Amino acid sequence: MSSLRYAIIGTGAIGGYYGARLQQAGCDVHFLLRSDYSAVAASGITVESIDGDLALPVVNAHCDPATMPPVDVAIVALKTTQNHRLAQLLPTLSPRGAVLSLQNGFGVEADITQHLLTQQKRLPTLLGGLCFICSNKVGPGHIRHLDYGRILIGAHNVDSQHHEPTPLMQAIVADFTRANVTANTTDDLPMARWQKLVWNVPYNGLSVVLNATTEEMMADRGVRSLITTLMEEVVTAANAWGEYLSPGTNRRLPEDTVNRMLSLTETMQPYRTSMKLDYDEGRRLEVEAILGHPLRAARLAGYSPLAMTMLYHQLSFFNARLR
Amino acid sequence: MSSLRYAIIGTGAIGGYYGARLQQAGCDVHFLLRSDYSAVAASGITVESIDGDLALPVVNAHCDPATMPPVDVAIVALKTTQNHRLAQLLPTLSPRGAVLSLQNGFGVEADITQHLLTQQKRLPTLLGGLCFICSNKVGPGHIRHLDYGRILIGAHNVDSQHHEPTPLMQAIVADFTRANVTANTTDDLPMARWQKLVWNVPYNGLSVVLNATTEEMMADRGVRSLITTLMEEVVTAANAWGEYLSPGTNRRLPEDTVNRMLSLTETMQPYRTSMKLDYDEGRRLEVEAILGHPLRAARLAGYSPLAMTMLYHQLSFFNARLR
Repeated sequence: MSSLRYAIIGTGAIGGYYGARLQQAGCDVHFLLRSDYSAVAASGITVESIDGDLALPVVNAHCDPATMPPVDVAIVALKTTQNHRLAQLLPTLSPRGAVLSLQNGFGVEADITQHLLTQQKRLPTLLGGLCFICSNKVGPGHIRHLDYGRILIGAHNVDSQHHEPTPLMQAIVADFTRANVTANTTDDLPMARWQKLVWNVPYNGLSVVLNATTEEMMADRGVRSLITTLMEEVVTAANAWGEYLSPGTNRRLPEDTVNRMLSLTETMQPYRTSMKLDYDEGRRLEVEAILGHPLRAARLAGYSPLAMTMLYHQLSFFNARLR
Repeated sequence: MSSLRYAIIGTGAIGGYYGARLQQAGCDVHFLLRSDYSAVAASGITVESIDGDLALPVVNAHCDPATMPPVDVAIVALKTTQNHRLAQLLPTLSPRGAVLSLQNGFGVEADITQHLLTQQKRLPTLLGGLCFICSNKVGPGHIRHLDYGRILIGAHNVDSQHHEPTPLMQAIVADFTRANVTANTTDDLPMARWQKLVWNVPYNGLSVVLNATTEEMMADRGVRSLITTLMEEVVTAANAWGEYLSPGTNRRLPEDTVNRMLSLTETMQPYRTSMKLDYDEGRRLEVEAILGHPLRAARLAGYSPLAMTMLYHQLSFFNARLR
């Protein structure tokens, strides 16, 4: 039985799924909700999952973080476009506590830091987690888990260098493992974020611009070549950033990253990306986390990726129109 | 009174407008029509124009080029996506006759040549014309001319070198001039085509991808920067092509081309581009004429423009979906 207490900030496709799994594993989990609060307080959370369905008729539902007990891990599973609200949404942390952001993109921890500092909050220990999962929220407290599910956790540090896994990170991984979720730690969270972007930049971005699923994009020879170009730019950006931050240490993405991502996508089910889901639902797109911050990091390192820049301007135009 | 006889192949926004003007100027004009044949045969052509409205209740309407007398100038005003039909649509030419393509893009004459040769037709003299005009077909034989109207005519030659204006070109210009249409000749048709592409590539292309008017695109700082990038690529491509075809002759676009195009667009009325109109009407996009041929010409000259390539793949994807 875990001794960790969790808060889930944002009980959607990601927070709902991983929170439910942690509760299933015996952890004390507290869910923060807004529009779904009444439904989840009354009926709990249901997960349809390729790894086994899960019904939690009773969960700790909160509509205000102030009603939560102090937690050891506050899991942030909001869209990055909501990070300006985070200072008001975090519960009290225990002395050993930390914030674990399960958000996509690059510079997510720096973004959270900036929002907390601007609102004069004390900075908690920040962890980042990458979720390799296809899941959707299909209704209040109703999650559909379609594929994958692995989670990779690393520590954020201000100088963006390697960071050994902490005891807290290992305890979180142990909880996930007991919940039947494949979980690992990484000692290089920023490079892990870059690596995930190799997928997210082309597929999230182009799925909105082209109004297409992963399968439709992969079936078109020209779009496939464009996807490859974008992936290569992200790899080049990551490696330039690694060399800039840690000169001479060979801090690079694996050589076969692009080919591996392309092959992976070919074996996937046709998939509407998270950015496409956001677009179709009229929600703001995570353009800064997926493209803006990585672009600025690349330029800082002396590399200006043109296809990423073009995609960034196109998506920003769509975003501006949503307002 | 002109001694030239004209055929208008494709009586739409461009062919309808310029054909009507030529008839107004006293030329013998024969219009080829398909779906609009009955309406135009019965009621003629009406032009609402900023340069003066025009009603031609009686015109020579044809649904088959075989019913036309031999003409001196066969004006091709079809979309370039219809060029495979051209061998069947051209009337007999007089001994001094020529085909004048008023189509947008680069490599249009080579495309026509290829289609005629493949279908074992004799190659006519080929002229190209660039129309700087905003006009729409709003109904059968009903043209709305919104802005501009100038036409620039040059001779095609297989080696893509300079070519002095011929007497026929000068006679055509004289007819247009008498029709109150500003008309000029150029001795460098390919470079004139490149120059027009500096506008057409970004605005036609992005208007479809972003679902936007020229005004909406210019109001967005990021898209404006993307437009500038695309324009600079077209200029670089044009100059690389000019140097490749005519080394050491300074065959280049004017230095201020990009700034002039941006300023021009700022003073334009909000405008739905021709490619956007095609897209909205479910017609195939002129992707090869506007992007494919220019891209291949640039690569032949050793320059591979990345933003144009990206836009090409995006538009080709939309085109493939239209089928």
